[in-house]
Amino acid sequence: MLNEVQAIPDVLRRMLDDDAAVLDLAARWAVDQPGLFVSVARGSSAHAAEYFHHAAMRQLGIASFAVPLSLVSLTPAPLQLANACALGFSQSGKSPDLVDSLRYLKQRGARTTAIVNTPDSALAAVADNAILLPAGNEVSVAATKSCVAMMMASVQSIAFLSHHRGHGKALLEALAQLPDQMSAALDLDWSAALELLLNSDTAMVVGRGGALPMAREAALKLQETCAIQTACYSSAEVRHGPMEIIAPGYPLVVFAPNGPEQGETLLFADAMRERGAKVLVIGPAKTEGVDLPYVTTQHPLLEPFTLIQSFYGVAEALAIARGRNPDQPQFLQKVTETR
Amino acid sequence: MLNEVQAIPDVLRRMLDDDAAVLDLAARWAVDQPGLFVSVARGSSAHAAEYFHHAAMRQLGIASFAVPLSLVSLTPAPLQLANACALGFSQSGKSPDLVDSLRYLKQRGARTTAIVNTPDSALAAVADNAILLPAGNEVSVAATKSCVAMMMASVQSIAFLSHHRGHGKALLEALAQLPDQMSAALDLDWSAALELLLNSDTAMVVGRGGALPMAREAALKLQETCAIQTACYSSAEVRHGPMEIIAPGYPLVVFAPNGPEQGETLLFADAMRERGAKVLVIGPAKTEGVDLPYVTTQHPLLEPFTLIQSFYGVAEALAIARGRNPDQPQFLQKVTETR
Repeated sequence: MLNEVQAIPDVLRRMLDDDAAVLDLAARWAVDQPGLFVSVARGSSAHAAEYFHHAAMRQLGIASFAVPLSLVSLTPAPLQLANACALGFSQSGKSPDLVDSLRYLKQRGARTTAIVNTPDSALAAVADNAILLPAGNEVSVAATKSCVAMMMASVQSIAFLSHHRGHGKALLEALAQLPDQMSAALDLDWSAALELLLNSDTAMVVGRGGALPMAREAALKLQETCAIQTACYSSAEVRHGPMEIIAPGYPLVVFAPNGPEQGETLLFADAMRERGAKVLVIGPAKTEGVDLPYVTTQHPLLEPFTLIQSFYGVAEALAIARGRNPDQPQFLQKVTETR
Repeated sequence: MLNEVQAIPDVLRRMLDDDAAVLDLAARWAVDQPGLFVSVARGSSAHAAEYFHHAAMRQLGIASFAVPLSLVSLTPAPLQLANACALGFSQSGKSPDLVDSLRYLKQRGARTTAIVNTPDSALAAVADNAILLPAGNEVSVAATKSCVAMMMASVQSIAFLSHHRGHGKALLEALAQLPDQMSAALDLDWSAALELLLNSDTAMVVGRGGALPMAREAALKLQETCAIQTACYSSAEVRHGPMEIIAPGYPLVVFAPNGPEQGETLLFADAMRERGAKVLVIGPAKTEGVDLPYVTTQHPLLEPFTLIQSFYGVAEALAIARGRNPDQPQFLQKVTETR
């Protein structure tokens, strides 16, 4: 897992150097003018998909959501998708529910794209076109580099379409600096997060906006590698009920990167600190209320990358500190096939 | 809370007797022919909205999803919603983020409907039209009857549009029997669920399809009324990582109602039982692997109602058994205002 996390900056460099496939995808979208994006994905790939949805709505204004797989892989629903593009995100491209779903979404009228990390996958075979990610073989059960590569393909294709539509080059230019920022994120000392979670069997990670899918990804890593039951909510949703479980001493990790969601998120963290929870706020250095700085980027849509990069290191080190093998959880396999 | 749960069958009877508002909404949809439904909601209302999305896709084939509020209430995203209908679900209709969001979705081109349980709400004031639910004053912090009333308005309007489109009367006819089935659900003895959760500080509720929003609602009730940290996943998604936390002795509630998702859900329950988890499967009587029967209905889209009706009783009794006041959690208020 550590090797795979350390490989991420170079994976992103390769994706910047060879962007033909994402350029091609953006060019198709420029022609098709989709009114809707839908995705099918599981696990970490579903978090990459959720990041895609956030970025597509934020940057392009195109409605975008994850279709519940039960509606498209079991008894399929009569979805009308004539003006939609469907994306299947998967490391292996093997799970039958994903393959069946993408095939079905195509039957219902959607243009389909597979975003996969394994050559010659069944998912790519059923799609109109495919992006083969260059993350390389991923052996740790808990996905890391494949998830970030999916996010990279997402934001690259969205940035190209946004530029094509005349919305400037800010995101494309910011992307060029991301690999070095990811390297810097590897070098941060986040041992405070490790200490917070070392002896806890429960925790919560909170984020909002583009940080919410990363909070979900962080929570999943803690579950997969450390078997810590980790809840995840947006910093607004958590107030509508779930915060009842946050008692004095409860470990709470708050992602508060730069962006429109930061102010409200910091207010929530303050309230929980006042309650007596053990709150660890991750945000920009020198911001009031921030305990642990992350590596900031040149664009709000890129902050999720450096956040999760540093957190992956925490999950790996925490698993070892808790006497577990981060590469091989007790009850999971690398490729999970569901229907 | 108990009084409010006991009132639900009569609330549904009133909604069957006076269905003018939902008929009117369905008639608007028949004219507008929306290609997309989007919702804004929080807490239990968001679970009612998720039920709406499931039913709309399953029964009507119309793409349907919850817009993350961070995209429409903070710095709003340039969403294109010319062919969309937007629904705001809220008990009080007061939270500023919901009001701002629905107003913004209207600006972006959506036809807007407020589904609220309180007269003269700000949410209804900004919407093109409103459905005022007849659930009556709800004082318990943990919502129950308002959530079920939102689900009822959802399925009634969807059933009317489905009938208008020539898809038969099966759902409408099944609805007529729902209030009596809800009364029967009140009388079931689900003390086995109470015993499972009495001394646990963590739990998981699993469901899929239409049962997934009810699993989320059940998990939220356990958090609000009992401060039990309760995870919730679909019975397929849980295999992709989260099931690592299910150790021997771990309390797992599985919703396995009739419907296309049942077979796969029962297989997951079996696997967890084999692992040594304390599994409680709620499903139809006389089905292999079912521990606790629920009241079945005449249509797969109505099974969620009787499931959650019986579970509300569990949450209320469990809170009392754990020495808590089910009506007043420690850290929550009835009306939560977020931005």
